Amino acid sequence: MEQVIYIVPALGILGLIVMAIKSAWVNKQPTGDENMVELAGHIAKGAMAFLKAEWKVMFYFVVIAGIILAWSGTLVENSTPVIAVSFVLGAFLSAFAGYIGMNIATKANVRTTEAAKTGLAKALKVSFTGGTVMGLGVAGLAVLGMGSLFIVFYNVYVVSTGGDVNGLAMERALEVLAGFSLGAESIALFARVGGGIYTKAADVGADLVGKVEAGIPEDDVRNPATIADNVGDNVGDVAGMGADLFGSYVATILASMVLGREIVSDDQMGGIAPILLPLVIAGMGLAFSILGTFFVKISKETDSVQTALNKGNWISILLTVAASYFLIDFMLPEGDLVMIREGSPTFTKMGVFGAVFIGLIVGALMSMITEYYTAMGKRPVNSIIKQSSTGHATNIIGGLSMGMESTVLPILVLAAGIYTSFLSAGLYGVAIAAAGMMATTAMQLAIDAFGPIADNAGGIAEMSGCDKKVRERTDILDAVGNTTAATGKGFAIASAALTALALFAAYVGLAGINSIDIYKADVLSGLFVGAMIPFIFSSLAIAAVGRAAMDMVNEVRRQFREIPGIMEYKAKPEYDRCVQISTKASIREMIAPGAIALLVPIIVGFSFGPEVLGGVLAGVTVSGVLMGIFQNNAGGAWDNAKKSFEKGVEINGKMEYKGSEPHKASVTGDTVGDPFKDTSGPSMNILIKLTSIVSLVIAPHIAEGPDGSAEAMQSVEKEIKSEVVQIEMAALEEPFRIKE
Amino acid sequence: MEQVIYIVPALGILGLIVMAIKSAWVNKQPTGDENMVELAGHIAKGAMAFLKAEWKVMFYFVVIAGIILAWSGTLVENSTPVIAVSFVLGAFLSAFAGYIGMNIATKANVRTTEAAKTGLAKALKVSFTGGTVMGLGVAGLAVLGMGSLFIVFYNVYVVSTGGDVNGLAMERALEVLAGFSLGAESIALFARVGGGIYTKAADVGADLVGKVEAGIPEDDVRNPATIADNVGDNVGDVAGMGADLFGSYVATILASMVLGREIVSDDQMGGIAPILLPLVIAGMGLAFSILGTFFVKISKETDSVQTALNKGNWISILLTVAASYFLIDFMLPEGDLVMIREGSPTFTKMGVFGAVFIGLIVGALMSMITEYYTAMGKRPVNSIIKQSSTGHATNIIGGLSMGMESTVLPILVLAAGIYTSFLSAGLYGVAIAAAGMMATTAMQLAIDAFGPIADNAGGIAEMSGCDKKVRERTDILDAVGNTTAATGKGFAIASAALTALALFAAYVGLAGINSIDIYKADVLSGLFVGAMIPFIFSSLAIAAVGRAAMDMVNEVRRQFREIPGIMEYKAKPEYDRCVQISTKASIREMIAPGAIALLVPIIVGFSFGPEVLGGVLAGVTVSGVLMGIFQNNAGGAWDNAKKSFEKGVEINGKMEYKGSEPHKASVTGDTVGDPFKDTSGPSMNILIKLTSIVSLVIAPHIAEGPDGSAEAMQSVEKEIKSEVVQIEMAALEEPFRIKE
Repeated sequence: MEQVIYIVPALGILGLIVMAIKSAWVNKQPTGDENMVELAGHIAKGAMAFLKAEWKVMFYFVVIAGIILAWSGTLVENSTPVIAVSFVLGAFLSAFAGYIGMNIATKANVRTTEAAKTGLAKALKVSFTGGTVMGLGVAGLAVLGMGSLFIVFYNVYVVSTGGDVNGLAMERALEVLAGFSLGAESIALFARVGGGIYTKAADVGADLVGKVEAGIPEDDVRNPATIADNVGDNVGDVAGMGADLFGSYVATILASMVLGREIVSDDQMGGIAPILLPLVIAGMGLAFSILGTFFVKISKETDSVQTALNKGNWISILLTVAASYFLIDFMLPEGDLVMIREGSPTFTKMGVFGAVFIGLIVGALMSMITEYYTAMGKRPVNSIIKQSSTGHATNIIGGLSMGMESTVLPILVLAAGIYTSFLSAGLYGVAIAAAGMMATTAMQLAIDAFGPIADNAGGIAEMSGCDKKVRERTDILDAVGNTTAATGKGFAIASAALTALALFAAYVGLAGINSIDIYKADVLSGLFVGAMIPFIFSSLAIAAVGRAAMDMVNEVRRQFREIPGIMEYKAKPEYDRCVQISTKASIREMIAPGAIALLVPIIVGFSFGPEVLGGVLAGVTVSGVLMGIFQNNAGGAWDNAKKSFEKGVEINGKMEYKGSEPHKASVTGDTVGDPFKDTSGPSMNILIKLTSIVSLVIAPHIAEGPDGSAEAMQSVEKEIKSEVVQIEMAALEEPFRIKE
Repeated sequence: MEQVIYIVPALGILGLIVMAIKSAWVNKQPTGDENMVELAGHIAKGAMAFLKAEWKVMFYFVVIAGIILAWSGTLVENSTPVIAVSFVLGAFLSAFAGYIGMNIATKANVRTTEAAKTGLAKALKVSFTGGTVMGLGVAGLAVLGMGSLFIVFYNVYVVSTGGDVNGLAMERALEVLAGFSLGAESIALFARVGGGIYTKAADVGADLVGKVEAGIPEDDVRNPATIADNVGDNVGDVAGMGADLFGSYVATILASMVLGREIVSDDQMGGIAPILLPLVIAGMGLAFSILGTFFVKISKETDSVQTALNKGNWISILLTVAASYFLIDFMLPEGDLVMIREGSPTFTKMGVFGAVFIGLIVGALMSMITEYYTAMGKRPVNSIIKQSSTGHATNIIGGLSMGMESTVLPILVLAAGIYTSFLSAGLYGVAIAAAGMMATTAMQLAIDAFGPIADNAGGIAEMSGCDKKVRERTDILDAVGNTTAATGKGFAIASAALTALALFAAYVGLAGINSIDIYKADVLSGLFVGAMIPFIFSSLAIAAVGRAAMDMVNEVRRQFREIPGIMEYKAKPEYDRCVQISTKASIREMIAPGAIALLVPIIVGFSFGPEVLGGVLAGVTVSGVLMGIFQNNAGGAWDNAKKSFEKGVEINGKMEYKGSEPHKASVTGDTVGDPFKDTSGPSMNILIKLTSIVSLVIAPHIAEGPDGSAEAMQSVEKEIKSEVVQIEMAALEEPFRIKE
């Protein structure tokens, strides 16, 4: 029954085939008039220019890091230079996943505008199909890449050597696979941060001069920064998010596989069922995501888009859960499962299914909580609206305090999720819960990516002077997109929190330590340093947006001043200049945060050893999850508080609209929230996973004890002796503690 | 040589005697004209009204908590109802310390105004003597209280029973003493949060309507909220801070004493020298603080006030360090010192001195870093000024990112401090480093408390229409006070971080666990929940300020509307109404954050056991330290960015002054920063210590194994067996890990 292993890449290929079909369909849709095509061309060109600039930096990084990896792979007995190959592949596929998304998005945008002339149903169909292409591309590449690499490494390291599937042979195979995840996650970080800085620098810059100073609407063709703003949607919200979710998806699957190796399983697949399970669940989730996409449609202009999306989403999720039950029942053996790790509880296969189910519930609750804290009409957004009436400062205070408050429920849900999935199936259960939650990533991404496509479509409609009705329709899609973007971020951060423990566990195993004990002075110091990383990371990202936005503001002011006739539509603004500013700034500014994420674990690990690095990991994780939730939700709430003024809001019995003082205060909040929710906040989950994976990869190099068999036995013996001596000493000291 | 023990309370009494003399001197100073006296009377009355309202709530809390403590003390073998007595005493002295400070501050304020008519030197003398009274009161009460209680409990539990000074007898004595710290720290939390909400609600409310809407200067007598604003300086910055530092001081000393018990010391004091040392250092620090205060003076109008303060501060610190050397050499025995705790390193008495020295360096570096991030003319404040030119939003983005950045260096310093002081003298070293750092708390507080006195003096000068020269002089003092306030907060948070590890260690000892291992699922969940606490705590505190400020704004608007003639000085505003709003709001809103800090450890400890609670403590500590530094420094930087506009700042080659658009943006930042730096930020160190102390007190109730001798032996034996079995199992599993 080992052939199950081939199902995984097959499902990946299936995903890519469907993707190709859907992509061809999008390409066949009409593109509208010449003006629209020209504008869309500007956007596509700007987006490609950014991607090329980004790829250049990434290329150098991948080459250098690859060489270091290959070289270091020759140094330690338990390491191999082959890891560099899988690293490069992971990096390439992550970048490619981002490219697929961006490519389809820059085609779907103008076609959505054209479709919106016909009706909302058609516009949804085009934009959502665009999103689907991206979702299937990301998930398809991940499943295909992980699946086929695993087959190769499994055969090379385990089957051909006759090695033990629970032993060092399989450990080696998975370590090499970790390189794939490292490549994917590094590129994800650069793409997310670079894209995030790009999009928000352009957005903030365009708004500050355009909306506030010049008093022209958003996406007005006279605003020199408007093309950059629309490019930003593609490079940040699409390409950045694509690479992000590719990386997260891979990291989560990998963590489950690494822990799966430690399970002694008497199954029909030669004992590798627990390792294979997360891959198969991912493949299955991909298949059911394809199915789910067919249910996302509306027939009437008044149908709810959100309901249509929810329907498709829930169908994918529920089918995946149901299928998981049978799959787990089929793959895993009867009776008690146990991990070959000290202190691990035993569990059954139904415990494993329980963990998948818990992952689903955690995901659903996270979405609901995120929606509550960021949606219009609920207490959090309303309280920010109310506090806008006393000025800019109280609006900010309101948003910050709401963002901080919004960490409570998600943290309780996550803590409960970790605790119960551990009770269900030990450490493996926690990892599988995360994998289950992310199984329908293809669907999640389709829902996420359609938002920026619709946003772009609206931009093109506005710039090309389409009928008002067209913009109204894209606005409906865009508004739904804002909510799905927020819940998508909640999902990503939840997966990071759950995966974190799995990665800790995998790391602890590889690093040859038994605990990460924060009551040790050095580990506590590590915890402090680790928890500081998300703060400096966020600071750099936010400051970068601030700086780049100021450059943008100055450039737009200059064009308004120096190019006469822009305001009267007589002269065209120099869009390219603004595109260049955003591109240069984002490429320059993504380096430092990226370097921190990559270098801190390496420096700490080699200088202070594996347990201190464990402390750093815990610090990054816990503070990253909190800062992520805080920033994402504060930003989302500020955004919707501002949007609420468009329809008018009642404050202390008085209706306030756009242009009123409270509305101006709400614009300030939204602007502050922009880098929160689109630059630093969504980078947190990558930061968390990337630091863990870097640590995992360097673990064999910093491991405390030797990991081979003979030496290991010796060290275990030594350990026994020293433990006994210590315990005897403790017993000797007991007479000091005389009871009165 | 055990008589050394009596030196401690004697030094405490010395401090209180000097305090009484200085207090009498302040009272003898002239109070100025009738108008000034009346205004000062309003302020004093408002401050007393708040304290009374606060005491009422605290009284109920102390009675209920005391009863629970007494009752629970009867439940477990290793606990005693006497703890309730020391709890009540700690609470009473903490509140009393706050009262002493506030009482002298409301007398010194108007006398400083009067003195400022003569010259800056005299004004500094009066205000600093006021601060000194408070500093000596707080430190004197702490040293006297801790010292005499320790003598009593030492005699009752150890000497009279002939118990072992390293054993359970002394552990009991120190556990009872922990009740004193619990009482002190609980009151500190309520006082800090309540006072913080009061002062910022009044400040923000007064500014928003007065400065922004009505265009009248700060402290204008026509502003109905101006008395409340000045009351706020006293109840928040003086009484709140006094109770805060009383609690912090006591907690730090206690943590060192608890760890000192575990040191087997062959000294001339019957083995209690390591326990006594932190108390004696504190007493000595108090004595040298008294000496240092005599050096704080200026002779000419142009002399630097900051230099005078620094001189006094450094004299106290250096004398304390020098004396510590001889004291440690005298008190501790020659040769290796070792703690009766598994895995503890040995160290020498010079290692202990090294730790004191490290504590000093950490404190000095923290002050320097804080000053850099909050002082005018440096990069951080300048960058916020620059970002004010593009509006409110970029000012906020600038401040937030700067606040986040400002966590980096302090965290590295703290991590290095923990690491090196541990290398110096083990866990005891980390605790002693904190104790050394806080030894000159009396001096620190004198420097801190003179600021709000000068601030108040300025308010009285403005309201009573004094000569412009008077206000100028008080403004010089106030400006210096802003910097000392910021560095004082840096100090407090540093002491919390260092004390935290000592409290963890003490807790781990009492709770009968050997580690706090974050790689366990339940402990990681605890870490998440703990790290979330500072977020919800900050959220509640900030939101409370926002709400109360809105009430204040509405009341001031109402008075301007409904009382004709206020603007023309023809009618007096109803100051009392505003005082009542602040009082009611702050008392109401301090309950929830206080309850969280007290209840979370209790609920977690009893529901999930001691190790999970350990995870919570680590989470609270690490996230509390970061949020504290972030909020304090962001607030301080925003404040000084705004202040910089008073003299005019150059942005992109153009001078900008008060009233300009960039200045308005900077006012927004300052307002957002107000609750950051004066409500939630400075509460973080109390939150951290309080959660640890609550855990320490409940530790015997939730301890995992029995702590008595016979049972302990049994449990140790059992442990040996289970460890051996586990290790054997691990060894058996090794064949799985075959080397290829």
